[in-house]
Amino acid sequence: MYARMSAAVEAGGGTIADIDRAEGLIWADPGNTAAFPVLVADADRLEWIQLPYAGIEPFAHHLDDRWTWTCGKGVYAPAVAETALAMALAGFKHLHGYAREHSWSAPVGRLLAGSRVTVLGGGGIAACLLPLLEPFGCVTTVVRRSGHPLFGADRTVTVDHLPDVLPATDLLVVALALTGETRGIIDAAAIDLLPDDAWIVNVARGGHIVTDDLVSALGEGRLGGAALDVTEPEPLPDGHPLWALPNCLITPHIGNTPEMGLDLLETFVEENVRRFCQGLDLLAPVDVALGY
Amino acid sequence: MYARMSAAVEAGGGTIADIDRAEGLIWADPGNTAAFPVLVADADRLEWIQLPYAGIEPFAHHLDDRWTWTCGKGVYAPAVAETALAMALAGFKHLHGYAREHSWSAPVGRLLAGSRVTVLGGGGIAACLLPLLEPFGCVTTVVRRSGHPLFGADRTVTVDHLPDVLPATDLLVVALALTGETRGIIDAAAIDLLPDDAWIVNVARGGHIVTDDLVSALGEGRLGGAALDVTEPEPLPDGHPLWALPNCLITPHIGNTPEMGLDLLETFVEENVRRFCQGLDLLAPVDVALGY
Repeated sequence: MYARMSAAVEAGGGTIADIDRAEGLIWADPGNTAAFPVLVADADRLEWIQLPYAGIEPFAHHLDDRWTWTCGKGVYAPAVAETALAMALAGFKHLHGYAREHSWSAPVGRLLAGSRVTVLGGGGIAACLLPLLEPFGCVTTVVRRSGHPLFGADRTVTVDHLPDVLPATDLLVVALALTGETRGIIDAAAIDLLPDDAWIVNVARGGHIVTDDLVSALGEGRLGGAALDVTEPEPLPDGHPLWALPNCLITPHIGNTPEMGLDLLETFVEENVRRFCQGLDLLAPVDVALGY
Repeated sequence: MYARMSAAVEAGGGTIADIDRAEGLIWADPGNTAAFPVLVADADRLEWIQLPYAGIEPFAHHLDDRWTWTCGKGVYAPAVAETALAMALAGFKHLHGYAREHSWSAPVGRLLAGSRVTVLGGGGIAACLLPLLEPFGCVTTVVRRSGHPLFGADRTVTVDHLPDVLPATDLLVVALALTGETRGIIDAAAIDLLPDDAWIVNVARGGHIVTDDLVSALGEGRLGGAALDVTEPEPLPDGHPLWALPNCLITPHIGNTPEMGLDLLETFVEENVRRFCQGLDLLAPVDVALGY
């Protein structure tokens, strides 16, 4: 990661310098936040700190308005969107089931093309997923708090219209932030509104779905299937009923793996270095007062 | 299928008629070709016969130039292309591996976005796959006999350039017709030219790949993995080494399932009925003399 971030600095027009001469600090050691206070003690010329996280919880206690902070919010959305599409296609083509076979079996599978796709959430993941769906000619509905139309969606509705949208949904992609309002938003009532052959893909947070309700629906065939990159609890413990359900695919939070994320972060940091060198507004600024 | 084909006739501007009054015949019983001679004995007004197959082998012995014949060639390519993308994304995201787990494991996976994709074959599947890949920003190379540029490909080369292309390929999609020339085109030599982390997706015919060479390469880690919708032999027998390889995903020829194919055929037949009613050239004509 250090090498990749160094390359991004050079590519963006910066040069690598010791901390006492540095104007910008790219944090390339995500697991080690404890070193921060010591490191910046002599950083007299420091103006800007770039963090690698989409959510900056690990650094929240270090935020200080002496400096300009940026983070990685939105950076990983292309990777997560790609994972969401991969999981949806796997479900529609029964790849999770075939992967478990050791014998030739009957051909099943349905087309994603022309399907009715509902994306719950209107943030970066939705914005990156819609272009990937575009060549499939899906009928896309984005459900978001504001209802402000998202570019590329056939329609955008507010969250209170979710019950109207679910009965006409073949694929539900959960891609919104977890808040008090959205926790448990996909419960038994919501699941029952979906067609019996609908698939749910969750690439947001496990807490959006009431796990027990999902287990019941999957077990009783009231849902086509679920592909979950996030779970509640997470990590999903051994022996949990979700592991054994034939219509469920669990992935261990791979939406943005270190391998994928580093590519995206490198490009992003290069751009922010370029902007910093040119005195332009930086991408993904952190509001120190609000803490995100 | 009868109901779907009847709907296509009506939607295309035709009407359902008994065979003695019919000008067109839509064959909606793919498994039953024996009924054909009896059925058409009284078909005095018959001009056109639409077959449901992409390859018309089941009807070859009935071909007769008294009538105009059309078939389903190209009709199913969108479904096969979608399956190819699903299998590629599954491989890149390790979904085949995660589907087999019963325990939370480490996040792995790579981005398809920006990858170097080589499509071996420049027919309908390639033409349908390239638009699906377009939003991923892949670098696409089509390898085909003619070398005639395929719309949407970054470059098109002739088959003799395959050895030049393979070393710079992250994903190889096999999507060409099986002929004496192309049988075994992916052998140990070809596989060895691919990077060690490359994936092969085969949605064409099992005979394109030398199975034993593939098994060796997968077992020795000389390839990222293989997703095979077609195998040689097919069906793949129980106990075949491919079933046990952790970097291999086998699907039982699901490129175009009956469920998917019917949707596509309905739309296609509707269009051909429309053309027939308007006296226009029909799609997917069969050359009776050549037999395909």
